[in-house]
Amino acid sequence: YGKNTIKFLRLHKEGKKHFVKEVEVCAHLRLTSPQEYLEGNNSLVIPTDTIKNIVLVLAKKNGIPSLEQFAIDICNHFMTTFCQVAYVKAYVQEVPWQRLHEDGVPHVHSFICVPDGIRFCEAEQCRNGPLLVFAGIKDLKLMKTTQSGFEGFYKNEHTTLPERHDRILCGELFCKWSYGECKDFDFDCIWYKIRECILEAFAGPPDCGEYSPSYQKTVNCIQMLVLSRVSQVQVIEVVLNNTFYNVVDMKNLGLTNDKEVLVPVEAPYGSCACTLGRKKFFEA
Amino acid sequence: YGKNTIKFLRLHKEGKKHFVKEVEVCAHLRLTSPQEYLEGNNSLVIPTDTIKNIVLVLAKKNGIPSLEQFAIDICNHFMTTFCQVAYVKAYVQEVPWQRLHEDGVPHVHSFICVPDGIRFCEAEQCRNGPLLVFAGIKDLKLMKTTQSGFEGFYKNEHTTLPERHDRILCGELFCKWSYGECKDFDFDCIWYKIRECILEAFAGPPDCGEYSPSYQKTVNCIQMLVLSRVSQVQVIEVVLNNTFYNVVDMKNLGLTNDKEVLVPVEAPYGSCACTLGRKKFFEA
Amino acid sequence: YGKNTIKFLRLHKEGKKHFVKEVEVCAHLRLTSPQEYLEGNNSLVIPTDTIKNIVLVLAKKNGIPSLEQFAIDICNHFMTTFCQVAYVKAYVQEVPWQRLHEDGVPHVHSFICVPDGIRFCEAEQCRNGPLLVFAGIKDLKLMKTTQSGFEGFYKNEHTTLPERHDRILCGELFCKWSYGECKDFDFDCIWYKIRECILEAFAGPPDCGEYSPSYQKTVNCIQMLVLSRVSQVQVIEVVLNNTFYNVVDMKNLGLTNDKEVLVPVEAPYGSCACTLGRKKFFEA
Amino acid sequence: YGKNTIKFLRLHKEGKKHFVKEVEVCAHLRLTSPQEYLEGNNSLVIPTDTIKNIVLVLAKKNGIPSLEQFAIDICNHFMTTFCQVAYVKAYVQEVPWQRLHEDGVPHVHSFICVPDGIRFCEAEQCRNGPLLVFAGIKDLKLMKTTQSGFEGFYKNEHTTLPERHDRILCGELFCKWSYGECKDFDFDCIWYKIRECILEAFAGPPDCGEYSPSYQKTVNCIQMLVLSRVSQVQVIEVVLNNTFYNVVDMKNLGLTNDKEVLVPVEAPYGSCACTLGRKKFFEA
Repeated sequence: YGKNTIKFLRLHKEGKKHFVKEVEVCAHLRLTSPQEYLEGNNSLVIPTDTIKNIVLVLAKKNGIPSLEQFAIDICNHFMTTFCQVAYVKAYVQEVPWQRLHEDGVPHVHSFICVPDGIRFCEAEQCRNGPLLVFAGIKDLKLMKTTQSGFEGFYKNEHTTLPERHDRILCGELFCKWSYGECKDFDFDCIWYKIRECILEAFAGPPDCGEYSPSYQKTVNCIQMLVLSRVSQVQVIEVVLNNTFYNVVDMKNLGLTNDKEVLVPVEAPYGSCACTLGRKKFFEA
Repeated sequence: YGKNTIKFLRLHKEGKKHFVKEVEVCAHLRLTSPQEYLEGNNSLVIPTDTIKNIVLVLAKKNGIPSLEQFAIDICNHFMTTFCQVAYVKAYVQEVPWQRLHEDGVPHVHSFICVPDGIRFCEAEQCRNGPLLVFAGIKDLKLMKTTQSGFEGFYKNEHTTLPERHDRILCGELFCKWSYGECKDFDFDCIWYKIRECILEAFAGPPDCGEYSPSYQKTVNCIQMLVLSRVSQVQVIEVVLNNTFYNVVDMKNLGLTNDKEVLVPVEAPYGSCACTLGRKKFFEA
Repeated sequence: YGKNTIKFLRLHKEGKKHFVKEVEVCAHLRLTSPQEYLEGNNSLVIPTDTIKNIVLVLAKKNGIPSLEQFAIDICNHFMTTFCQVAYVKAYVQEVPWQRLHEDGVPHVHSFICVPDGIRFCEAEQCRNGPLLVFAGIKDLKLMKTTQSGFEGFYKNEHTTLPERHDRILCGELFCKWSYGECKDFDFDCIWYKIRECILEAFAGPPDCGEYSPSYQKTVNCIQMLVLSRVSQVQVIEVVLNNTFYNVVDMKNLGLTNDKEVLVPVEAPYGSCACTLGRKKFFEA
Repeated sequence: YGKNTIKFLRLHKEGKKHFVKEVEVCAHLRLTSPQEYLEGNNSLVIPTDTIKNIVLVLAKKNGIPSLEQFAIDICNHFMTTFCQVAYVKAYVQEVPWQRLHEDGVPHVHSFICVPDGIRFCEAEQCRNGPLLVFAGIKDLKLMKTTQSGFEGFYKNEHTTLPERHDRILCGELFCKWSYGECKDFDFDCIWYKIRECILEAFAGPPDCGEYSPSYQKTVNCIQMLVLSRVSQVQVIEVVLNNTFYNVVDMKNLGLTNDKEVLVPVEAPYGSCACTLGRKKFFEA
């Protein structure tokens, strides 16, 4: 079992207009025989240097039509070229370059990095098994300054947390979903649609929001909305790393702090995670 | 000489609409006497805990009208309150929360973190000296996929770099400028204007760009444009950390790579920096 | 499913001599019902704040006799106290404080942080299942400057790597082993014994070393030595993140570089991983 | 003004015994003319690629007898080779590889990375000016579990910190000293002697320690001991980044916590810094 990581830029031109994709590719391989581990026999080993060359050659020949298609291309190449490969997984992650605009006019060849959530995908395949495709978003930091509370939780002699019905909800979201054995999906379009679902479910209606009784329930709302709106998604996993904020107690300083000044609480640092699928999926 | 760092959130409401500023404040103090170092006499020392309280109380009382005004408020407080303070510097940096939009409608209380360049400022003052204000942007990652070269450089027996007239120009920009002894500026408005100048000078006209003969010349173009367009700026410093990209040589692999696939070069990792002011400034 | 992380210091005195353990504890819980996700019903939820309190109280009452015993204590507490807990895992990691010595004399209360490999452990339990204990070491950076090669690997049209019989072997090691349903082991003693096995298997005899034909074979040697020397270990997983070094080609510069100057290769960055157990274990 | 960073390994053999130095070198250059910034004229520019080649060639030819000597060699090379260089600074930092030992026997070619304080140095020179040499240690984490307090500090209405006469003193030390226009020093020997002074002044006598009334006083003790013991040091700068630990209040949990369980306080995060020289130095 081995893996390796390659970072590169794929440039593509249409007339004067440039298109850029910078990606980080991580390929995992498992061979049919562990002889290189047990006997020091390297005859089946595909060096990381060769894997790097293959990934770069595929990028050169096919381009990167979408992250997902590129991950599929990598899996296909290894499965069809190397009979000693028992399992392959290709993880592809994007550097979020966006085209620069000047007074609303898009620039032909200048880009700015805007990391408001990182897009990634995975394709994996066992020999004689189906090719499975996953996609996701990570490092997406979101905050709601109201419409969030945490009440009615379990209490015993170790409980010191007070109930709160108007706290800050802030966290870093990781979200990964499965397309199953995907067909010819428009991966780019679906990804942006899911990103919108996540933001909408997190925030609620723009004029008033929606009350969240816990991080857990917000996680579930995101999953439910994605599953109801995007039929191509089979299973969706969400992890929310919480950052808690405490209202600073200013009584000693002679002031009343009405949720105006808050400090992030570094510890305990928590997260909640949930994986949700369709009923038909689990029945299948 | 001591400093400390405090991170907090300042929340402000206008009707149902919430406004949020999350900042990291770093206060540097130098006292008139070094007796706590030499004699272990703490009687003049202002504990970091007290400094934290002061910063939070100022945020509670005054809010954060702009980063710059908040830094000025901190300096003023320390200079007027503590006669043992010989020098104070307040650095304020912003967490880049942006209001969420759903179908173009701004959300009343939900925000997303968009770190495409971090805004910061500094105010500093020596006792009996003027209060000086600086502002800046950092961690701004930009890329031009063409209109950049590097030719005609100095060559000797240690030179192996070929001349290039069509390379990638990519880097992380740090930019800091001085307002001198500022008056009542609209700091927010000026900051956004300077950010636009930086992007425009980096990229050139949107339909064709502008050729950059070196990172150094691009640094100079940015400085010249800011100084020409924004009269409030006295001096401007720019540091550009370069990321070099090499076109992958695919001859061994039987392919011609026409600047389509490139890999970042981790070493040598370089940067160039320049500080530029107005003539009248240096004459003064 | 939720987890959280707590960092703290446990101080213990015997006369004038101080003993310090600083640990990071991460507790994972899964409840018997997902009602807080689906219905927003928090009545069974144990807040991260309560989990923090419990961990600190256990540290206060029991101390930290060993990382492993502390992880076991945490699992036991949650399983016996909360009937709504279906699964608990406690991960404990140590900050590597070592007692300072002056001219060979140990200091009674001063310590230095020496991060040459981080010790960690895990205990986990499902309700009605056995309590399983794991231990490990991570971030252990090792290098052999000779007695390492890589030859006889699979070659095709994408291969550009030359065979090498005298390269640098350098990497960061992660190693985790299972004690099964452990009894009253001397966890500290075993851990140090295993660390010695890892170093010995990596390096070979001090006077001449031992030739490594690949990273994979070195991984296997480490596993074999640990399993043969330490009977308490049931299964052992090793991951080796490779850092490759290339001999700098100085022909253009008129010099012959006989493996004297080398540069680390950032990409491709690889790793190999293997899990090995005892035959009797897998037969059971 | 430009700089760049190069990381490499220098290997050296004496019979079967290998010696390894892995260093990161950062070279800063300022040219006599800013024409590449103002006019885009690159004719005097020394590309980072050339700088990298020079550093590697010097390492190949001279080896790295000591970090300081290597930094001096770099400065000398640039000053004597390039008349367009107005200023050069070479910063050299070491990766802390230590020889592995098995049962006390040193291994001929295996090493372990032990980052308990990182050694670095700097050499710098202006044209027609003296060559100045600095050395230092950074990322040295130390802790005293007693013999530290903080009392008698300045108090006003913003003070909430209680006085403490038995707290934890923990921090990360940065220390940099000047050798002036150094002659032929044994840099390795001096560096280890200074490291010992730092540890001794921080910790005090091994059997009882020495009371520290503040971080500031500890900083001063370190400086005084180094200046008194090591005559080659002209000026010494010390920065101590404090990590505060609070005794956890367990009254709510029905327990008395006698400085047994403590948690690190992330904010405010403070540091104190001081530069101290010899009287004759400042008089000169």
